[in-house]
Amino acid sequence: MAYRETEKMRLRKAEVRERILDCALQSVSEGGFRNAQINQVAEMAGVATGTVYRHFESKTELFAEVFRRATEREVDKVAEALAGPGHAAERLERALRQFAERALHGPVMAWSLIAEPVDPRVEGERLEYRRAYAEHFERAIGEGIEEGSLPPQDARLSATCLVGAIAESLVGPLSPTQRTPTLPEQPATLSDGQIQTLIEPIITFCLQGVTGQRR
Amino acid sequence: MAYRETEKMRLRKAEVRERILDCALQSVSEGGFRNAQINQVAEMAGVATGTVYRHFESKTELFAEVFRRATEREVDKVAEALAGPGHAAERLERALRQFAERALHGPVMAWSLIAEPVDPRVEGERLEYRRAYAEHFERAIGEGIEEGSLPPQDARLSATCLVGAIAESLVGPLSPTQRTPTLPEQPATLSDGQIQTLIEPIITFCLQGVTGQRR
Repeated sequence: MAYRETEKMRLRKAEVRERILDCALQSVSEGGFRNAQINQVAEMAGVATGTVYRHFESKTELFAEVFRRATEREVDKVAEALAGPGHAAERLERALRQFAERALHGPVMAWSLIAEPVDPRVEGERLEYRRAYAEHFERAIGEGIEEGSLPPQDARLSATCLVGAIAESLVGPLSPTQRTPTLPEQPATLSDGQIQTLIEPIITFCLQGVTGQRR
Repeated sequence: MAYRETEKMRLRKAEVRERILDCALQSVSEGGFRNAQINQVAEMAGVATGTVYRHFESKTELFAEVFRRATEREVDKVAEALAGPGHAAERLERALRQFAERALHGPVMAWSLIAEPVDPRVEGERLEYRRAYAEHFERAIGEGIEEGSLPPQDARLSATCLVGAIAESLVGPLSPTQRTPTLPEQPATLSDGQIQTLIEPIITFCLQGVTGQRR
C-alpha cells in the first residue's frame, strides 16, 4: 500500500512536470524565450511558482528543456521526411520544404529555436541540434552519392551547408523587421502564397548546391 | 593653454581606450569570449582594472565593442573581395574563399565571432552583422543577374543562403571536437593543405547554389 502511494506520487509529480513543460512551450511559442516568465508559466499550469522550482532548478533549466523538446520534435520531423520514398534529392527537397513550412507557420517558436539571442547554455544546445540536423542530411546525401543520383561530394560539408543556408534564410522572414533581432510583438502571419514565394528560392539554392544542376 | 591641456587629455583618453580594445581583441583571439577577463585585459594594457571600467561600462560592453571591431574588419574584407575585377561568380568565389581562409587561419577568433555561445547582447550584434555580409553578397548576385552571368534568382535569399552555408560549415572545423560548442583549449592549427581540403567542398556547394552549374 505504501509502495502504491509512492508510485502514485511519482506519477503525479511526472504529470505536473509535464504540464509545466507544456505551458512553458506554449509561452515560448507565443512570445519567445525573452518574454517567457516563470510566474506566468506557473499560472498557466495551475501551480505555485515554488512548484516550478521544485521541478526545475532555475528558469534557464526549464527553458533549456523547452528548447530541447521543441527542437527534438523538429529534428524528428526532418528525419521522417528524409526516410520517405524517392531519390536523395527528392527526399532532401521534402525535408527542407517541410522544415521551412513548419517554421514559417509557427514563426515565434521557430525564431526562438533558430535565432533568438538566448542564454549561452541554450545557445550551446542550439549548436548541438544543428549538428543533429546535419547528420540526418549527411546520411541522405551519402545515400544519393551511393545510388548515383547525386554527384560525388563531401556529404558532411554539403549537409552543414544545407542546415546553414535554410536556417539563415529563415531568420530574416521570421524576424518582424527583417533586420533586427528583436522579437515580434505581433508576429506577422504569412499567407500560404507568401510562404511558398519565400521557400522556393531557398530550396532552389539548396538543391542546386547539392546536385550541381539548374532547378 | 587650458584648451590644449584638455585636448591632450582627450587624446590620451582615446589612446588608452584604443589600447584596452586592442588587448581585449588579442585576449579573445587567444581564448574566446568565455575566457576573456577584464583584469587580464587591464594587465595587458598596463592599466588598473578600474580604468577599464571608466572606458567601458561593463564587461559586456567592452566585449560587444571587441565583437563589433573584429566583425567589421571581416565584413570589410568581404566587401573588398567582392569589389574586385571579374564576373559575379568569380568575385563571390574570391570573397567566400577569403572569408573561409581567414577564419581557418584564426580559428579561435573566428569561432568566437561565428558560433561561440555569448551574451544575448553580443548575439544580437552577431545577427546584425550577418545581415551586413548578406547585403554585400546580395549586391554582387544582383550584378551577376544584371550582367547575365548568373541565372535569375532572388538575390536576397541566395545571399542569406551563402552566409548561412559558409558560417555553418566553418563551425565544425573551427570547433575542437567537431561536435561540442566548447572552446578549443589548444586550438588545432590546420595546414594550408587541410584548409584547402575543407574549403573546396563549401565553395562548390555555394557556387552551385548560385549558378545552378556543376563546378
